[in-house]
Amino acid sequence: MKNEAITSRDVDFAKWYTDVVKAARLCDYSNVKGCMVIEPAGYALWERMQSVLDGMFKETGHQNVYMPMLIPESLMKKEGELINGFAPEVAWVTHGGANLLEERLCVRPTSETLFSDYYSNVVRSYRDLPMKYNQWCSVMRWEKTTRPFLRSREFLWQEGHTVHASAEEAEAETRQMLNVYKTFFEDYLAIPVIAGRKTEKEKFAGAEYSLTVEALMYNGVALQSGTSHYFGQKFSKAYDISFVNKENKQEYAYQTSWGVTTRMIGALIMVHSDDFGLVLPPKIAPKQVVIVPIGNVLEKVNEVYEALKANNISVYVDDSNKSPGFKFKEAEVNGIPVRIEIGERDLKRDVYTIARRDTQEKVEVNADIDVVSYVKDLMDKIQNNLFETAKARRDKMTYEVESVEEMKEIIENHPGFIIADWCGDEACEVSLKEIGGLKSRCILEEEQPTHKCAMCGKEAKHRVVWGIQY
Amino acid sequence: MKNEAITSRDVDFAKWYTDVVKAARLCDYSNVKGCMVIEPAGYALWERMQSVLDGMFKETGHQNVYMPMLIPESLMKKEGELINGFAPEVAWVTHGGANLLEERLCVRPTSETLFSDYYSNVVRSYRDLPMKYNQWCSVMRWEKTTRPFLRSREFLWQEGHTVHASAEEAEAETRQMLNVYKTFFEDYLAIPVIAGRKTEKEKFAGAEYSLTVEALMYNGVALQSGTSHYFGQKFSKAYDISFVNKENKQEYAYQTSWGVTTRMIGALIMVHSDDFGLVLPPKIAPKQVVIVPIGNVLEKVNEVYEALKANNISVYVDDSNKSPGFKFKEAEVNGIPVRIEIGERDLKRDVYTIARRDTQEKVEVNADIDVVSYVKDLMDKIQNNLFETAKARRDKMTYEVESVEEMKEIIENHPGFIIADWCGDEACEVSLKEIGGLKSRCILEEEQPTHKCAMCGKEAKHRVVWGIQY
Repeated sequence: MKNEAITSRDVDFAKWYTDVVKAARLCDYSNVKGCMVIEPAGYALWERMQSVLDGMFKETGHQNVYMPMLIPESLMKKEGELINGFAPEVAWVTHGGANLLEERLCVRPTSETLFSDYYSNVVRSYRDLPMKYNQWCSVMRWEKTTRPFLRSREFLWQEGHTVHASAEEAEAETRQMLNVYKTFFEDYLAIPVIAGRKTEKEKFAGAEYSLTVEALMYNGVALQSGTSHYFGQKFSKAYDISFVNKENKQEYAYQTSWGVTTRMIGALIMVHSDDFGLVLPPKIAPKQVVIVPIGNVLEKVNEVYEALKANNISVYVDDSNKSPGFKFKEAEVNGIPVRIEIGERDLKRDVYTIARRDTQEKVEVNADIDVVSYVKDLMDKIQNNLFETAKARRDKMTYEVESVEEMKEIIENHPGFIIADWCGDEACEVSLKEIGGLKSRCILEEEQPTHKCAMCGKEAKHRVVWGIQY
Repeated sequence: MKNEAITSRDVDFAKWYTDVVKAARLCDYSNVKGCMVIEPAGYALWERMQSVLDGMFKETGHQNVYMPMLIPESLMKKEGELINGFAPEVAWVTHGGANLLEERLCVRPTSETLFSDYYSNVVRSYRDLPMKYNQWCSVMRWEKTTRPFLRSREFLWQEGHTVHASAEEAEAETRQMLNVYKTFFEDYLAIPVIAGRKTEKEKFAGAEYSLTVEALMYNGVALQSGTSHYFGQKFSKAYDISFVNKENKQEYAYQTSWGVTTRMIGALIMVHSDDFGLVLPPKIAPKQVVIVPIGNVLEKVNEVYEALKANNISVYVDDSNKSPGFKFKEAEVNGIPVRIEIGERDLKRDVYTIARRDTQEKVEVNADIDVVSYVKDLMDKIQNNLFETAKARRDKMTYEVESVEEMKEIIENHPGFIIADWCGDEACEVSLKEIGGLKSRCILEEEQPTHKCAMCGKEAKHRVVWGIQY
C-alpha cells in the first residue's frame, strides 16, 4: 500500500528522506537547534550496529575506554593542523556554574588530543605497545545546515585510537579497520562501498593519510561512510608519546584513528528504503519478523512465534486492536523484513502467508512447513537481494570519463560516481567544485590511470572516484 | 601476597581506595580537571553493569533513546526547582566556533527537561501512554572536589524517564525501578542495600518524592547508590505534557525518572576489595577465570579453557612471559574471581590447583574433575560469600539509637548506619550536620517509630537511617 505520509522518492528525494525518518519514527527534531532526538526505532538500529561492530573490534583485539567530553583549548592546540581543521566548528564551554573558567574547554569534536595525552602518560616501553582502544560516545560539531542522521551538531559514533611501536604495524591497523568497515557495510548493511584513499585536500586534519569507504545513495549522491586515518608520528611528536624500543632507544610512537557514526542510519535509508517506508537488511533489523494474527489463531501463532524465538530470530506478534491492513502497513513503514500473516480461514485450508518487505512478494505456505528454515532462507534471500540491487544500481550509476564535459553532462542529468584520471594537482581537483559541487571521493589505490588528467590534459598520477557529497 | 602498591585499607582508607583504582587500572586522572579517563578494566566493568541492567530495563518494557547533550537555558528554566537545584553546577556553552550564541546552552546535568519537551510534542492521547524510555549517556556537574568514580565533573549513567496516564501507574513505576536497582545491587554486585524514601530536604529538585537505595562502605561511610523519583504533574505542568484521557478530558501526565551511575564501580571497590587489590563478584566480573600454565601443560590448559568457554564462563589463559608468582599477583590485583594453576609437576600427580580470590583459599583438585560444574559451584559460593560478608558487616555497623549523644559516640568511634526516630522537622534534620556531617539517608517507610524524636524529644513521625555520605 502506498503510504500517504511519504512523498515519492522519485518526485522529491530530500522530502522523501525526511518523510521516511518521520514515518518510521527514527528521530525527531528537538528544541536544541541542529540536534536530534533519536527515538526508540532509530536507537534500536544504532544498538544493532554497535553490537555487531563492537564484536568485530573486540575480535581484532580492541578494548573500550571512555575519555572526557571536554578538551582544554591548550591541549587541543598542541597539534596545529587539527585545531585549524576543527576550530570553526566547536562548541566552547566558558563557565562552570556562575564562574568564568580560567581556560575555555571545547566539547569534543573528536578525541585524538585526549587519547594522545593519555598515551603520553602511560606509554613507556615497546612492551606497552600496541594499545588498541575504542570509545562509543557523542561528539559535537557546530554545523550550520543540518539533516537528520546525515549532518547534525551532535551525533553518536565510535572512535578507535591506537598506538604502535612501528609504522608498518600502525599502517596495517589503518587498513585492517577500513576492511572491518567494508565488511560491515557490505555483509550487514547490504551497502556496497568503494574503498580508497582521500586526496591531500580531503584527508583528515593532522593525518598522514586517510582511507575511506564511499557509498552511493539512490539519488546518485555520495556518502563518506567510514574513515580510517594513519597519523604516523604527527601526534606523538606534538603530544610527546615516546617509548624505549627494542634497541633500547627512545622513539616516537605511531598512531591511527578510525570511526563510523549514526550517519550509517541515513545511508541505510537512502540505499534501501522506498515509497512504502523503511527497508532493513535482516542482519541489522532489530525486529526481523512480525506475526499478524487474523481471527482465532492463537495456537498456531504461538507455535510459530516460539519456534522462531528459540532459533534466535527476533520476532514479535502484533496483537493490537488495529485492523490487519493497518498492521501490514505499519510493518512496512517500519521495515520489518518478514511478515507472517496467520488467518483463521487460511488455516482451515492448512496454509498461511509469508510476505517479504524488500520485494513485497507474498507466498502462501503449507501450515506445517519448517518455518524456521523457511524464514532463515528467506532472510538470506532478502539480505542478498538488497545487496545485489544496491550494487547493480551503484554500478549502473558509475561512469568512467575522460573529460570535464562528460562530467558536466553526467552531474546535470544522472549523477553518480565518476571515475576519471587526475594529475594530482590540487588546482585541477578544486576546479571541479563548479560542476554542482563535484569533489574527489577517493583515489583507487590498486588501479593505474590509463588516460591523461581529465581536467588539464597533463600526465595522470591517480585514478580517482569523484562525486557530489552529503 | 601483599601488594606494595596498595596502602592498607585499615591504615588509610582514602589512600587505599585510590591505590586500588590505580593498581587495577580502572581509571586514570586526565588533564581535564575533575574528569577521568575510564581505562579498559574499568570500562569493561561498566559494560557488564550496562548489559545486565539494560536487560532488566527491557524486560520491564523500557526502550532506549538518545536526547541532545546540550540544553538551552530557557528550556532548563521552565521548571523552577530543577534549575535552582542544578544552576550552581552546570557547564555553560556560550560560543559555537567564533560566534557568541544568542542563548547559552548547558551541558546536561540530567535530562528531565529534554524528555519533558519531547513528551510534550508526542503525547496526545491516553493511547500513547505509557512511554517508558531510558538513555545511556554522560552527564556533567561542575563539582569542586572530585574522587575517581565517586564524584567527578563528568560521569556515565543511565537515566530512565517515563510518562503515564495515571498517578498510580507512575508511582508503581517509581517503586518497580527502585526494586530493579535493589535486585541488581544485591544479586549482581553482592552489595546489600537499604531501600527507602528521601526526606523533603534530600529529595531530587523538582520531584514529589525520591526513593533511594543506600549502601554502606567498608569504612562505615554511606553511598547513595541509585535513586528513583516520582514527579507527579510537576514537569508535565511546566512543559505542557497533556493528553486526552479515557473520559475524553484533557489531563496533565504523570512522570518518573530513575538513574544509576559509574559510582557503582566505586561502591564495588569500597565494599568488597582488600589490601591485595580488587575483588569482584563473579556475576559482574568481565573476566571470571584465569588459567595460569606452569611448564609444559598446553593440552590440559586447552581442555580446561575450552570446557569453560563452551559453558559461557568468561575465561582467559595468561600465557605471557611473566613468572607464575607475578601472574598470581596480577590476577589478584585485577580481582579475577577464580584462578586455575595448572603445573607440569602437579599434573604428573593427576592434580591441579584452583584458588578463589575472595578468601584466597587454594584447593588441589583431581585433574579429571568436571571442571565446569566445579567452577560454577565455586563462583556461586564466592558470590554468596561476598554478599553475606558485606551484609554481616553492614548489619554489625548499623546502630539503633535514641539520642544525639549516642550518635556522636558512634560517628566519632565507629561510623555506620544510624537508625533513629525523627519528628519530621527540618531543623532537627539539619542540626545533625554538626556531627561529622551526619545526614538523613532515607525514611524507612515500612517501619514505625517506637521512640521520641532523637533530636528534640517530640513525637516522632518517621524511622530514619542516618549516615555520613560520600
